[in-house]
Amino acid sequence: MTITITITAFEHSPDGGKGLARVRWALEEVNQPYDVRLVSFKAMKEPAHLALHPFGQIPTYEEGSLALFETGSIVFHIAQSHAGLLPTDANARARAITWMFAAVNTVEPPILELANAKLVEGDKPWTKERMPLVADRARVRLKQLSTRLGSADWLDGGFSAGDLIMVSVLLRFRSSGLLDEFPNLAAYVARGEARPAYKRAFAAQLAVNAPKA
Amino acid sequence: MTITITITAFEHSPDGGKGLARVRWALEEVNQPYDVRLVSFKAMKEPAHLALHPFGQIPTYEEGSLALFETGSIVFHIAQSHAGLLPTDANARARAITWMFAAVNTVEPPILELANAKLVEGDKPWTKERMPLVADRARVRLKQLSTRLGSADWLDGGFSAGDLIMVSVLLRFRSSGLLDEFPNLAAYVARGEARPAYKRAFAAQLAVNAPKA
Repeated sequence: MTITITITAFEHSPDGGKGLARVRWALEEVNQPYDVRLVSFKAMKEPAHLALHPFGQIPTYEEGSLALFETGSIVFHIAQSHAGLLPTDANARARAITWMFAAVNTVEPPILELANAKLVEGDKPWTKERMPLVADRARVRLKQLSTRLGSADWLDGGFSAGDLIMVSVLLRFRSSGLLDEFPNLAAYVARGEARPAYKRAFAAQLAVNAPKA
Repeated sequence: MTITITITAFEHSPDGGKGLARVRWALEEVNQPYDVRLVSFKAMKEPAHLALHPFGQIPTYEEGSLALFETGSIVFHIAQSHAGLLPTDANARARAITWMFAAVNTVEPPILELANAKLVEGDKPWTKERMPLVADRARVRLKQLSTRLGSADWLDGGFSAGDLIMVSVLLRFRSSGLLDEFPNLAAYVARGEARPAYKRAFAAQLAVNAPKA
């Protein structure tokens, strides 16, 4: 008997739920069924949810007596527990994990800063002059990533959890227009979105109140 | 025969090399000898180093045919390869890894933003008015972390790679004075610094040109 996996999702997602798609996507890649518990923004800040996620966010992941939070670690746990998202060769596996950390710790911070500049400080007098500086800091990282990817399909050999996280992070740059400045990165993201598992995850997210398989 | 581990460090570290101490610290915790190759800021942007680290940073990690970059993934690889930094129980191990990701993806971004506000935008007309907003965003995270830690010594049972990364990230808040607003976090960081492995790593870093054991 398989232990039920339960993840949390926004009841009303502020960004259409793109963040959470990472965990759904990972579960679809390894063909694991899962339940979704919807959480309101208010409930996320209450003790029951804070016990699961100390920073009052989603996603969380429950599987029997195990409870995890933080997208990167949940995707890693899924990739570690099921075949399909990490290479079996030890060195290739370590490199795939490197790309997971690079995505969340080197590529994502400038997009978080860009998001804060727009969403949190959008009404400040300095925003118009400051935004191009923040965008330029993001461009530095995108250019380096674009150079490394070159004409390859994925970051290091076949598709891995590293690509899953990196594509998800890059998707957050799309609305800024920055992604389209780097055609090979835009094509890389499109390859991610074209994967059947991604499509299933995204469809499930849109139909967030429909029963899951 | 043990394969030699080689890590890179700044020839002249802009921050006294506190960033790199994480990898040194991890290697000291698991009692692994290592060589250090010093890299100048200029050399970091040149093709030979970019082949190792696509974002032109330090640290990097070389061990036989394996080459890694990104602090979190290097510390994870060390913790995965040697006893001492990750619990053997599978669930406890997954939770320790969760704290590694939480440190780099949830707690570190606001301190990176604070550092950018000071170091990159310090001469801008908006900085004086903007700094308190950025500091407040960092306080939100520190308060949540402080609440979760409570009176415990470490984040989840015994000291783990999750604590190693979290303490290293928190150390970057110290100069801002924010850390001292949360006495249990300041004490947590002090416990990390009091570990013999931390002291050895820090001493080695100060004596950066001295030969390594």
